[in-house]
Amino acid sequence: MFSEEEYKTRRKKLKESLGEGLILFLGNDECGINSKDNTYPYRQDSSFIYFFGLQIPGLNALIDLEEDKEIIFGDNLTIDDVVFMGPTESLEEQAHKVGVTSVRPSENLASYIENSIGKGRQIHYLPPYRPEHILKLSDLFNFSATAVSKKVSVEFIKAVVKLRSIKSNAEIEEIEKAVNTTVQMQYKAMGMAAPGMTELDLFGAIQNIAVANGNNTSFPPIVTIDGQILHNHFRGNLLKKGDMVLCDCGAENFSGYAGDLTRTFPINKTFSVKQKEIYDIVYKSYQAAVNMLRPKQQFIDVHLRACKELVVGLIELGLMKGDPDKAVESGAHTLFFQCGLGHMMGLDVHDMENLGEQYVGYTTDLKQSKDFGFKSLRFGRALEEGMVFTVEPGIYFIPELIELRKSENKYMEFINYDKLEEYKSFGGIRLEDDFLITSSASRLLGAKLPTTSNEIEDFRTSKSSF
Amino acid sequence: MFSEEEYKTRRKKLKESLGEGLILFLGNDECGINSKDNTYPYRQDSSFIYFFGLQIPGLNALIDLEEDKEIIFGDNLTIDDVVFMGPTESLEEQAHKVGVTSVRPSENLASYIENSIGKGRQIHYLPPYRPEHILKLSDLFNFSATAVSKKVSVEFIKAVVKLRSIKSNAEIEEIEKAVNTTVQMQYKAMGMAAPGMTELDLFGAIQNIAVANGNNTSFPPIVTIDGQILHNHFRGNLLKKGDMVLCDCGAENFSGYAGDLTRTFPINKTFSVKQKEIYDIVYKSYQAAVNMLRPKQQFIDVHLRACKELVVGLIELGLMKGDPDKAVESGAHTLFFQCGLGHMMGLDVHDMENLGEQYVGYTTDLKQSKDFGFKSLRFGRALEEGMVFTVEPGIYFIPELIELRKSENKYMEFINYDKLEEYKSFGGIRLEDDFLITSSASRLLGAKLPTTSNEIEDFRTSKSSF
Repeated sequence: MFSEEEYKTRRKKLKESLGEGLILFLGNDECGINSKDNTYPYRQDSSFIYFFGLQIPGLNALIDLEEDKEIIFGDNLTIDDVVFMGPTESLEEQAHKVGVTSVRPSENLASYIENSIGKGRQIHYLPPYRPEHILKLSDLFNFSATAVSKKVSVEFIKAVVKLRSIKSNAEIEEIEKAVNTTVQMQYKAMGMAAPGMTELDLFGAIQNIAVANGNNTSFPPIVTIDGQILHNHFRGNLLKKGDMVLCDCGAENFSGYAGDLTRTFPINKTFSVKQKEIYDIVYKSYQAAVNMLRPKQQFIDVHLRACKELVVGLIELGLMKGDPDKAVESGAHTLFFQCGLGHMMGLDVHDMENLGEQYVGYTTDLKQSKDFGFKSLRFGRALEEGMVFTVEPGIYFIPELIELRKSENKYMEFINYDKLEEYKSFGGIRLEDDFLITSSASRLLGAKLPTTSNEIEDFRTSKSSF
Repeated sequence: MFSEEEYKTRRKKLKESLGEGLILFLGNDECGINSKDNTYPYRQDSSFIYFFGLQIPGLNALIDLEEDKEIIFGDNLTIDDVVFMGPTESLEEQAHKVGVTSVRPSENLASYIENSIGKGRQIHYLPPYRPEHILKLSDLFNFSATAVSKKVSVEFIKAVVKLRSIKSNAEIEEIEKAVNTTVQMQYKAMGMAAPGMTELDLFGAIQNIAVANGNNTSFPPIVTIDGQILHNHFRGNLLKKGDMVLCDCGAENFSGYAGDLTRTFPINKTFSVKQKEIYDIVYKSYQAAVNMLRPKQQFIDVHLRACKELVVGLIELGLMKGDPDKAVESGAHTLFFQCGLGHMMGLDVHDMENLGEQYVGYTTDLKQSKDFGFKSLRFGRALEEGMVFTVEPGIYFIPELIELRKSENKYMEFINYDKLEEYKSFGGIRLEDDFLITSSASRLLGAKLPTTSNEIEDFRTSKSSF
């Protein structure tokens, strides 16, 4: 938790942005797994954390701009709560720490909203992303579930994006802590992997580090020999000699801030020639992108540059052909790189994803593309000092996608489909680090991991006992 | 996953129980943490697993009794799904494995329900425990969120309880596997704990074992030096000499079945005299309860017997006084044992908790008590062969509860409040194992862990290096 002043300042800036009306913050509740009381690890809503700091289920908050009130709605513990969940400070004491002096019982929220609706006042709320939010809003406003999503406040979204995009020093410190826990997770996976283990062994070990050093993982870790599946959550495969492991994972601090790093490494001490060739192309793309990070740089151009580097390398290897710029323009690279180069990171690993990428990563002048590949670029607009970004190029050989594009006769001018047959079971490679945009360029967050293919081979050689 | 025949038999028995109408099964969807796409580990609804086996988000199923149809509603993967989540067998192939031949697109469910409502047919559904279920039902039936919960089918609940209460051999095998993973988790915590570690270190390590050997933990592990907080989810404390750790944890298999074991052990090699005295009382209570487990035995009487053993021991220690039977009758033991002796276990750690304890653990003749302590006994009715149970007595010194009861002048006849002052910061001890009710008695599930205070001290002595 940050200082009382930091929360007050954040709310002050938000109030200045919005000017009038009521600002409603729905906190997250506990979330039942297979019954109401057997719950997933609790996670507060990130904007609630950002403006109110309290990570307690069952809270909601209101800022009443005309009446200049900040109110947290929630209930103190009963004796049953104390018996089962332990004592805590009173809600009033906790609210005080984030500079809020008004705490009211949960049940009072509905009448506050009802009165305000009666007076014709505007009530701002953010897009609901959990069914519980839809139910709450639908109940408070007497809207249908469909109407609820249509009446979100774009003004509120834009004000939040403006504030949360630029990280304070205290936030950067928290993010760097999460990244450093993630560095430990990467070292663990890269150090322990050996033939005969399963992906689950690595997954269990890195999750262990995340929970022992912080709150949890910041997203479901991807720990897979099938690196070509971009968000693979299956982890039952056996690790065999010759395989590569793609490990994409992040820790989340108790403060809610995320890390997110990816390394791809061989189960053998060294990469095969083919693996190394592809790895080095991904590394060049990564390097080209990182060199471009600086304020005012449009991120979509960094993405395009990274794509071009991938294409240049794949042409050298004989998998692609033709003019690299034209290939990227045609989207041919999306046969190998189906996603975006990176995303903002903060209280969410994909920062503010729930607010809508069109508001977070694009502007009225720069709209998000709907084309395959480009539509997965979460951020396209200009970088600013204080933003935190991932850079994560990759090359993925997805047999189903190759078959589909071939059957469509797509990108014939740029792809050597015959040669590609040799790579159909190759898998995928991704390389990802986290960067802070500084006044003139960028700074790598967290301790430096083995990054080039040689560095990774050196590390694996020092660790592999077989 | 079990054999096609097992799922068919389960559905056949259910159909025979219900006779007529439509039986609606809502599968669980993915559940967003801090945005829609950053999801918690997926968990299918347990009754959906029991009758349809498929652990895939986005499915629903219907059994139409009059038309003798079994239909799974769901959608096959798009190319975007394949790129991000990997290829899978078609839904039709997967459904075939559980004996279902009819698969229809998700969107067809609504019209099937609408037509059936139009024909005045009865549609059975189970109680919704996730907000997503309430939204789905509210949408399908055009009910308000409140009405949805009121129109659940008690007939359906009772039929499911009847079937799921009695475990098949295949189920018992799965449960025992989960218990044995849990045994490993207990050995890990009990073996590694040392001063200077935090509770999170133990938590991370046992979660590692759960995920490396199965799907996940079956509930949020309780790993705490504050054992008096019954469902403590805070895990930030440092372990110090003289502390005890209460570790209550369970693994969940990929098949969905749970384990649930508790051990309380000293951070030192041995318990202090005071700790050992309390431990031995809990052990006697455990032993008395286990000896009573057999078919036709009312579990509420096992609970009362276990409570009496606790009281007898606490009288010997001088913390309680008076007649043990009268003390239990008055509820005085609930100052130390605030919860129930145990619960059924199966596809849920508290089996079928979401269906309502009044249906799972009680009968029309035996109602669940509303009194403090007794209301937390999840099961009171007669045991049957094939049921799986936890037995988990404990003694918990909860300062806030002691203060409250003292201020109410409660149980003055049975409690030595003066002597109790010495124990106010003692913490809590719980001992829990899992049992199968056999034809004549019970069988401990999983490998035997150190259970008596001496066994625990022997194990700690063999492991402690300080």
